[in-house]
Amino acid sequence: MASYAGRFGPHNPDETYVTHAFGEQLVELGEVQMNYVTAGDSSNPALLLVPGQTESWWGYEQALPLLAEHFQVYAVDLRGQGRSTRTPARYTLDNIGNDLVRFIDIVIGRPTFVSGLSSGGVLTAWLSAYATPGQVIGAHYEDPPLFASEVRPATGPGVRQAIGAIFGLWSTYLGDQWSIGDWDGAVTAAPDVLPQWMQPAFIPPSTPPQNLKEYDPEWGRAFYSGTVAASCDHERLLRSVKVPVLLTHHFRRVDPETGCLMGALSDLQANRVRELLAEAGVAVDYRSFERMGHSMHGQDPSLFADTLLDWVSERST
Amino acid sequence: MASYAGRFGPHNPDETYVTHAFGEQLVELGEVQMNYVTAGDSSNPALLLVPGQTESWWGYEQALPLLAEHFQVYAVDLRGQGRSTRTPARYTLDNIGNDLVRFIDIVIGRPTFVSGLSSGGVLTAWLSAYATPGQVIGAHYEDPPLFASEVRPATGPGVRQAIGAIFGLWSTYLGDQWSIGDWDGAVTAAPDVLPQWMQPAFIPPSTPPQNLKEYDPEWGRAFYSGTVAASCDHERLLRSVKVPVLLTHHFRRVDPETGCLMGALSDLQANRVRELLAEAGVAVDYRSFERMGHSMHGQDPSLFADTLLDWVSERST
Repeated sequence: MASYAGRFGPHNPDETYVTHAFGEQLVELGEVQMNYVTAGDSSNPALLLVPGQTESWWGYEQALPLLAEHFQVYAVDLRGQGRSTRTPARYTLDNIGNDLVRFIDIVIGRPTFVSGLSSGGVLTAWLSAYATPGQVIGAHYEDPPLFASEVRPATGPGVRQAIGAIFGLWSTYLGDQWSIGDWDGAVTAAPDVLPQWMQPAFIPPSTPPQNLKEYDPEWGRAFYSGTVAASCDHERLLRSVKVPVLLTHHFRRVDPETGCLMGALSDLQANRVRELLAEAGVAVDYRSFERMGHSMHGQDPSLFADTLLDWVSERST
Repeated sequence: MASYAGRFGPHNPDETYVTHAFGEQLVELGEVQMNYVTAGDSSNPALLLVPGQTESWWGYEQALPLLAEHFQVYAVDLRGQGRSTRTPARYTLDNIGNDLVRFIDIVIGRPTFVSGLSSGGVLTAWLSAYATPGQVIGAHYEDPPLFASEVRPATGPGVRQAIGAIFGLWSTYLGDQWSIGDWDGAVTAAPDVLPQWMQPAFIPPSTPPQNLKEYDPEWGRAFYSGTVAASCDHERLLRSVKVPVLLTHHFRRVDPETGCLMGALSDLQANRVRELLAEAGVAVDYRSFERMGHSMHGQDPSLFADTLLDWVSERST
């Protein structure tokens, strides 16, 4: 019975992190220090990459060399991820989004494309709506759980009819900032707590994997309880989008018996996203990849880079 | 029976606003357009003034000429106040605070002193903790309801044991963005809804006063329900303050029978603020004005300007 209480986070880097091929840097943003890597030439367009929940910047490690041929690319750890600051009780889309506003301002310093996976895709949606004028040229939402990561969505299944149970499990047994650290408890409880359809993918391995060591489990609590989006309704956000959007939609299936969503957002929800963006008057490029897993940039970095480049080229011509 | 439903706000300026001696300007911040006035020479230190709840920038109209002799001064309307944008369901300290971060960056463009009244004082506390590095030189909290405007404060009475009932009254009868506008209903209900001790000061007049026409009653709901500070605990905020603070504490009295607070924060709460700031390692200048009403800048502009100048001079020597 190993206890991991208090073991992981920026206060204990030796046990938490591993080395990578890209040099990491910290920038002071006020409330948080944000960790990031950068690659590519400043003569190319700027591109900000925003990882998903339980992912650090190095989720993009394979895609970075491909993207660096065409962009000056930046990949970040959000607050509560990787080597960036933990901010107890302050994980909201608005706070995390405003960290990125400051990052673009201080580090990138010019208009940028943004691409984010999963909750990082919700955050690129946030940037496309609420960033400082002129900061964002266009936004790629990579398989974003729009609506489906809310507790009370305007459209379709909410977090409890989607991936919520795993957030509840992590939050309960690992605790905010790994304060509990009862990994064995999570392993034991998983078969009871997780719905059948989630078990093949989400039964925890015997020891904490690298990505979860770098993750503040309070993120899970913020999503499962709804505090993360309490003052940031997704429908309202989408009505406020001001720049062109690429929406890539990956594997999804709604179980006909339970109504539960396997995947990031349902077809109905993706349609509603497209409707709202059209009403907002912005160009939307919707591309469906029904056989692609949640992270295209992880599973097929070449397709990810090609898809992004293709969309950016169309925007530039 | 006059109905004011939908009558007041930036969509209907003729009925909502009156003219002032200072020229007003709008700046585009992304989500909101922020209205402000400015006065004074750019060779003087910058000073940002943040009005309180139900106050627009012109609450400072008498103080501005005095301050303009010594500062380049900016007074703003926050989101949901005056001529600035209404943002339904998005009134949080973090969002309003980040509006000010953008305002300092885009309009002021250099390090600034900040002074705010009441919830504006909570926001200058927010700026003193969470602004972008280098933006804020020092922060004046003018009679701020630290703790006392929270629903679940770490110390002392919360909003329901303080001024909360009037926020509930306005929110109920006027509605978000004046959607209900039943002023007569508010007048009729006030004697039943407001505690005895509040009635002398808060029974509404027969028609809406100018400051409330310019106020989005959803602010009241956000404070009474607690959404405004849901992810911004005041104790945590105060532990994060990074610059020198002037705390002016005005009239206050805790009713011994009910425990209710008349005033913005109790002595116990002010003491706790000072303790937390001392622990954070910042200089705190605490000045008690027991006979002063809530707004010193409104009631005694000269004393306000002198107090601020005296503190700023000490900071510069």
